[in-house]
Order: sequence, then structure tokens, then C-alpha cells
Amino acid sequence: MVSEFEGKASSPDMLYFLLDKSASPITCKAAVAWEPKKPLSIETIEVAPPKAGEVRLKVVSTGICHTDLYTLSGQDAEGKFPCIFGHEGGCIVESVGEGVTSVQPGDHVVPLYTAECRKCKMCKSGKTNLCSSVRATQGQGVMPDGTSRFTCKGQTVYHYMGTSTFSEYTVVSEVSCAKVSPEASLEKVCLLGCGIPTGYGAVVNTAKVEEGSVIAVFGCGAIGLSVIQGAVAAKASKIIAIDINNDKFKLAKEFGATDFINPKDYPDKKIQDVIVEQFDGGVDYSFEASGGNVEVMRSALECCHKGWGTSVIISVAAAGQEIKTRPFQLVTGRVWKGSAFGGVKGRTELPGYVENYIKGNLKIDEYINGTLTLEKINEGVEAMHTGKIIRLVVNM
Amino acid sequence: MVSEFEGKASSPDMLYFLLDKSASPITCKAAVAWEPKKPLSIETIEVAPPKAGEVRLKVVSTGICHTDLYTLSGQDAEGKFPCIFGHEGGCIVESVGEGVTSVQPGDHVVPLYTAECRKCKMCKSGKTNLCSSVRATQGQGVMPDGTSRFTCKGQTVYHYMGTSTFSEYTVVSEVSCAKVSPEASLEKVCLLGCGIPTGYGAVVNTAKVEEGSVIAVFGCGAIGLSVIQGAVAAKASKIIAIDINNDKFKLAKEFGATDFINPKDYPDKKIQDVIVEQFDGGVDYSFEASGGNVEVMRSALECCHKGWGTSVIISVAAAGQEIKTRPFQLVTGRVWKGSAFGGVKGRTELPGYVENYIKGNLKIDEYINGTLTLEKINEGVEAMHTGKIIRLVVNM
Repeated sequence: MVSEFEGKASSPDMLYFLLDKSASPITCKAAVAWEPKKPLSIETIEVAPPKAGEVRLKVVSTGICHTDLYTLSGQDAEGKFPCIFGHEGGCIVESVGEGVTSVQPGDHVVPLYTAECRKCKMCKSGKTNLCSSVRATQGQGVMPDGTSRFTCKGQTVYHYMGTSTFSEYTVVSEVSCAKVSPEASLEKVCLLGCGIPTGYGAVVNTAKVEEGSVIAVFGCGAIGLSVIQGAVAAKASKIIAIDINNDKFKLAKEFGATDFINPKDYPDKKIQDVIVEQFDGGVDYSFEASGGNVEVMRSALECCHKGWGTSVIISVAAAGQEIKTRPFQLVTGRVWKGSAFGGVKGRTELPGYVENYIKGNLKIDEYINGTLTLEKINEGVEAMHTGKIIRLVVNM
Repeated sequence: MVSEFEGKASSPDMLYFLLDKSASPITCKAAVAWEPKKPLSIETIEVAPPKAGEVRLKVVSTGICHTDLYTLSGQDAEGKFPCIFGHEGGCIVESVGEGVTSVQPGDHVVPLYTAECRKCKMCKSGKTNLCSSVRATQGQGVMPDGTSRFTCKGQTVYHYMGTSTFSEYTVVSEVSCAKVSPEASLEKVCLLGCGIPTGYGAVVNTAKVEEGSVIAVFGCGAIGLSVIQGAVAAKASKIIAIDINNDKFKLAKEFGATDFINPKDYPDKKIQDVIVEQFDGGVDYSFEASGGNVEVMRSALECCHKGWGTSVIISVAAAGQEIKTRPFQLVTGRVWKGSAFGGVKGRTELPGYVENYIKGNLKIDEYINGTLTLEKINEGVEAMHTGKIIRLVVNM
């Protein structure tokens, strides 16, 4: 076996570093979304060098998440085209801009759509992971200086979620880089960019589930499976998996779910009533991972036990959609919460997720149904729409 | 001055005890609600002796609360007529049924519409004050054995909220009796039966407001004023009082509110947007004490700070009314809760409220606009409808 250094030195990336081209634009391939509802287009783009406080990353692998599909569908009010999607990346730092100190070329990083600056009011509160440092510009598809680092055919292409991992190279803010152990495969840990911490963190950070709790999870996709992983780690006594597709229960069981309910088996009843009846007044904690169905969000709240049951909304509903319930549900002790990126402070917590994966305490491989190349990314997008896929990973 | 014993021995009550008539029915006056929307009727009723686990109380004073008015209006689905309203009582134990050990004749008690048995799943959970021991029968207007202790003109008259304090005598469950210090005037501490702990407890028990927090309270009636008292005790840094009636702000200020907002001054804006703008992104905690307006409940949630703001619904909405918001409000870190009787475990906590009142650390006298006799109770009900009254106390 070659040593780690030799391995790196012999790679094209390392040669690139040695030539110190960090201040030059990079020409590479990317999947560009020119407009909503159209297939992504594999294009040759230019990626400008990182400015102060920015980092240019070589994307090794990226997951495809339903949030990418959602924005591509045109329903996301914040969506700005043309852009480069992707927010589940496994990357290597290619070069850093002025003043960047927390990462250096060669570091393995997972880019964060929820940054962690440790300086803003939100970070300093100690009460939330919703860092505000780059939020405003990120929502506009640009870097903090108000401009994009991507151009294609002479046209500006916007960033997406501050990550844009459907590209061989991308530029992100330093505060959006979680440096992780290089021992773990980037083809796997890319999924720590969204789905896995979002579900797992909702359990351990947002709900703070205690040992012995009875929990319910609505939806058994990647997020729901991650809720189950979190609940197993928190030593929940019962983990009720709810899905309208029985095929989802096999993997849910492998992940640790103990009970399985398909609402279609109860056509004449509200699913919350079924759960309250079958589980001694309801669950201690419920998690909505349905992909944004506001009726499911209501069911998740109302299946909670009177007096203390807490429900956590995880997924994002379409614009204009509203959740509803009778206030009596809350006055009698239920709590309605939500969670973004599982309440995870990425730079602080993702290294621990990677360590847990290396030690065999966190499942990642089990989510991946297959891999494909960037050229075939539209096939991956189509496959995600079938509902039969948990995750596909694109290797650049 | 006569000694305490002499004082008691000379009262008609003590003579009554000495004659040991505890096993006989008592004939007395009560305000009977024969049907919804009609004035209460002062009647001579019979109050049966307490059965096992029950306590018969001489009601010395009672507050009139908006919840009594709500049920009298016919909107309360659980309302059962004819009945005797009233749930803010200051009482003396007249006699006890078999097996009652925690109170004895002569004890001062505040009857509880939220019992505390210390044995049911709810009490044992340590997570809620919503004791389930007598809840089912209480909701049906009867004692736990399924019968009423009240008769009038040969007809059964139902109990209300397990308390029925609009009567010279009433019967309640032992688990619904909070024994309090006899040093405090029952004409004052009767208000601890509902309004004051409901608001105060929502702050200290349900929200657990920390020192330095910015809080908002929607509605400055008895509950809202009690929220302000709780927030002062919790050392909130800013206490924003919101009401559509400027007259309410004088007392709110005396109680400790620091800022005052009348939504009518902002006809073109949502009040939540005004608060978010004026208070650096919103409040840490908000409390809805509007008397059941679901739009106000929404405003209270949405004026909370992103990332951590917590809103507590305190009042009860009319049947069929629903609260609504965009799920994004919760996904971005706001928490929606509710509180019943301020999360207060009555038998355990009310004695402390009375001690605080005796020491001058809890305001009660300031809520009382006047007193009246039972015969004039309908004038009190009318006065409450004007919105100019915080509390009237009926002395029997």
C-alpha cells in the first residue's frame, strides 16, 4: 500500500495544488438548471476563484435530495434560475480565499446549507443552529458580496442553498464548510449534507427524546429513516413507522422501527385516532417527514399524548400551505415545533457524525440505492420521483 | 382582640361543626343556571353530604371569570344545564366524606378545576398538571360516582368544572382541594382558583421564561396581568403589553409592563410585523390571553423571534375554531405551546401562591374592582361583559 501522502501526491488534484493555480478560474462540468421544470443541462462552466472568506471545493460526490427537485419544480418562491442545484456534497478543498483559516487545500469537507459563523446573534444565542451570517445572500443565489462565482456561456449562473454541489467545482463560504475526517469515503458522507442530520438531529437536538419514549415517524424516506436512527440512539422504547407505501417498512424495520402503520389500512379513521387508541393515549414524540404534506403535519401533532406529547415538523411545505389544529390540542399540553437541518450546528457537530459512521454507529451506506455519473444526473432526478429510491449518489 | 379559637367558636360555622350535621343535606342559596343565555336564578337548593373521597365546602367568596360567561353563552360543547357555575372559590371545609385525610373541617381551601391526585398516569409523569382522576365525570357535570350533590325543586342540578362556587355550599373531590393558609382573606385568595395562576404559571411553569427575556402578552385582562406578574418575577427585561383598549395599559404598567402596543394604531400592518420590527426580530416568549381569538393566537406565534421564540396559548377558543400558520414558522425554530391552569399542580403549588400573597410578593387585591352579594350576581355577569372590569368578587 502507498502511504497517504503518496496517494495524494499522485492524484491530479494534488498536482493542481502544487501548481498554485488557486487564483485562476477553473473550467469544469456542471449540471445547470436553466429554467424550472426542464431537465438539467450538463454544461462546461467557469468557476471563479474564492474571494475573501470563501473556499473553492472539488466536489467528489453529491446526493440528490427532494429539496433540489422541489426547487426545480418551480414551486419554491426563493428559486432563482439559471442555477446549479445540489446540497449534499462530499468535497475536497481546492483553494481558499483571503483570511480563511479553518480549512486548507486537501481538507475533506461537507458544505453546509445552514452555515455556522459562531459570531451572529443566532449562533451566540446558543438556542438555534439558524446562523444568519450568509442567509440573506444565500437566499438570493449569490455569495456574501452579492455576486456569483459561476458563469456559463457568458451568463451568470446562480448558487443554490450556498452549496451548489451538482458541479465538479463549487465555491462556498468558509462558515459553510464542515471539515470532517478524511478517513471516511466522501461518496458516503456527502449524505451528511442534508438528509441524515435533518432526521437524526430532529430527535436528539430538537425533541431531545428521552430513553423509554414512544415515538412516531410519518414518512419513511431518507429523513424518516434518519429519525428512526436517532430514536434508536436515544433508546426509544417504541418506534412507530407510518407510511402509505408498505414497501418502505422493510428498511424501516432494519433501521430499528418496532411498529408499522399504513393509513390506507384505516380508510374510515383519522390516523391520529388510530395511534391514540393503539398506543395508550398517544406518543411522546412525533416527527413529520412526509415531504411537506400539511395534513400529515396535523396528524403528527394530534397523535401526541395529552399533557406532554411533542411534534416536530421537519419537511418544507409548498408556498401558501398552512398547518391547522384546534387550539385545545395545545392548551391540553401538546407542543408543536419544527426543525431545520435537525438543529445541527454543522461545523461543530458533523465531524462527530463522521466519527460515528467510521465506528459503525451511524448507518449511511444503507441509504444508497445506487451511484451514477454527472452526465446521467437527470436519470437520478427521474428515479427520485418514483418514490422507490432513498438516495442516489452522483460521483463526479 | 379575641384569640383565633374564640373567633371561630363564635361564628355560626363553628357552631354548625359542633352539632356534627355533616351527614345531613344542607339547604342554602345558590345561583342556578337553568338554561344558556338566561340570567342566573337565585334559588334555594339542597346540597347532599359528601360521599367517600369528597369534601363539602362553605363558599365564603367567589370570583366571576369569563369562562363562566362562556359556558353560560351556550357555546361550550361540554356545558350541561341546569348547573351551578363558579370556579374561583375561597372556601372553608364544612365536612368530609369517608377516607378523606388531606383536609378537615375548618381548613381553608381553594377548589381546583384541575385536580391533583398524584396517582394517575398524568400526575405520575411529572410532565403535566392535567390530572385525569376526576376529569371524565367532571366534564359531565357530576361527581366521580356519576351523580350530582345538588338538587333544586326536586330536580338534579349539575356541577360545573368540579367546583360550582356560585353557591353557599358545594361538594368537590378531595383531590380538587388545595389547602391554603388561613391567614389570607378568602375574599382575595379565591382568585387563585383560576385567573392568577393561569397567567403566572404560563410564564414560570409552561414557558419557563429566563432572566433578561423579552416577552409579549396579548390581552391585559386578569390573565394578561398575571402573565405580567409572572414575567416580573422571572426578571424579564422587556414586557410588552398588547391590547385594543388603551384603558387597560394603566394597570398593566402598574403591574410591571414596560412597553405598550395598541394594534388599532397600526391599521395597515399585521401586529406581529410591528413587533418583529420594533423589537429586534421579535420576542423570546409570547402569551395569548385574548379570550380565545384564534387570529390573536397566530399573531402571538408569529411575533416570536426566529430560532427560539416560544408562544403559549392560554385562553380557550370557541368550538370549531382553528389556529393556523405556515409550517415555515415552526421549521425556523418557533415553538407553539399551550397552558391550562398555568401548568399549576394546585394542591402542591397554590399554598405557595398564598404565602407569596401574604408576604406581599404577589398582587391579588389589585385585580378586584368591587364586591357584591350573591343576590346581585347577574349585575356582576353584566359588568364583566363590558370589558371594563378585571374581577368582581361575590361574597356569600
